[in-house]
Amino acid sequence: MDIVEETVERGVIERRFDLKVAEDVVPGIHWLPEGATGPHATVLLGHGGTQHKRTPNVLGLARRLVRHLGVGAVALDAPEHGDRISDPAAAEAAREGLQQRIAAGRGGDGPALGTEERMRAIAERTPKHVAEWRSLIDDLSTNEQWAGGPFGWWGVSMGTSHGLPLVAEEPRITAAVLGLNGLRPGSEHMADLAAKVSVPVLFLFQWDDELMTRESGLALFDAFGTAEKTMHINPGGHIGMPAFERDAVEAFYVRHLRVG
Amino acid sequence: MDIVEETVERGVIERRFDLKVAEDVVPGIHWLPEGATGPHATVLLGHGGTQHKRTPNVLGLARRLVRHLGVGAVALDAPEHGDRISDPAAAEAAREGLQQRIAAGRGGDGPALGTEERMRAIAERTPKHVAEWRSLIDDLSTNEQWAGGPFGWWGVSMGTSHGLPLVAEEPRITAAVLGLNGLRPGSEHMADLAAKVSVPVLFLFQWDDELMTRESGLALFDAFGTAEKTMHINPGGHIGMPAFERDAVEAFYVRHLRVG
Repeated sequence: MDIVEETVERGVIERRFDLKVAEDVVPGIHWLPEGATGPHATVLLGHGGTQHKRTPNVLGLARRLVRHLGVGAVALDAPEHGDRISDPAAAEAAREGLQQRIAAGRGGDGPALGTEERMRAIAERTPKHVAEWRSLIDDLSTNEQWAGGPFGWWGVSMGTSHGLPLVAEEPRITAAVLGLNGLRPGSEHMADLAAKVSVPVLFLFQWDDELMTRESGLALFDAFGTAEKTMHINPGGHIGMPAFERDAVEAFYVRHLRVG
Repeated sequence: MDIVEETVERGVIERRFDLKVAEDVVPGIHWLPEGATGPHATVLLGHGGTQHKRTPNVLGLARRLVRHLGVGAVALDAPEHGDRISDPAAAEAAREGLQQRIAAGRGGDGPALGTEERMRAIAERTPKHVAEWRSLIDDLSTNEQWAGGPFGWWGVSMGTSHGLPLVAEEPRITAAVLGLNGLRPGSEHMADLAAKVSVPVLFLFQWDDELMTRESGLALFDAFGTAEKTMHINPGGHIGMPAFERDAVEAFYVRHLRVG
């Protein structure tokens, strides 16, 4: 991990780094409590589709977790997101497509997070991005100041598409916040991954999500293999999750990560 | 309100009182923070079927709310519950019936909280008990030390059967925790009441509740007229709600009552 820049704001160190994984350079940010030493838990933050490692909700959650819980937080740009966009026109089209889908309202049983093409693109990039997260966990685990874990996952919407295989198969992750995603009829691979999840899960869902049906969200919750899982449902659309769910996220990590 | 007995334990005053309502004497308990003066919020605790005003989960929640939030808490024996049981054999039969239903596992679309006869009995007693709660709110509102409100409701299972009409129609209640109950096909009266609820609601549901279907729980959540409502779903049966939901209840009242 190469540290590119380090700033401090109100007790939170923000460390821009580049992580080399195979042929790629993956830009990321590591937030840490100022002055903390010794091993700390770290929450991995997977941003949503068309967003990036420092998108406002990721930045806000990272700072909050560092300040309130004294844990570290880390985010990566997903492939073709943030600083990794190689085709700006395609990225812009994806953003517009997502906005149009949300503006159009409920799309019934259509693809959860965009067109079939967009869903295929996310699915194709997922194994690569999961490998990048694993590589980051390797790196953090051997960092003397931040070794040890445990690691938590947070990622809703595309952050769940990327997080699900990681949470299902990476034993160093001990708790996961997922949500804004669903299990469509025919998504056997996703159902298989969900069944493998054995760590506590908080699953956040919006009852009027324009991008997926209620049934698909309930089906994904149902599919998680873990004995400890909680689903929180609020009215409103894909981007309307109430701010107080941040409190629930925090309480969840307090229960399941070594904090403070 | 006649105070029958007052004890103090670890900072919590527990005041046994009798409330006269029409021809009845309704036994209740008021928990208050020791040494507190001036108007405080109060949470009304509606116990479940076959339980009573000092059943362990009610007592535990009351003490916790007093200690953590500095609010008051109050519970009443429902008609034919606790000290108001006039027919011990019938009360014992209700308890056994409930236990048998839980032991038998999911009963499909049957009555939510017992036999049809038991459901009728609860429904028949509800208006009377709602009037008792209103009378208690009147009394608390004119108590110089505890005047002012706001009042919160907490009651799951039968505590929701009793609480729903109160929360729907009593403007002095500003937030409600409900749950472990559902809207069966044909329960138009309950649906009408749910539609009238305009205060924030936290709705707690068990995904494998032996006494009601998932669909009935989702239907009740859906029916609440309020814009601010959250449903928490956990795996497990009717009496298996995870202890951490107490944290969620507390956070909910912190948002919606004047606490501290």
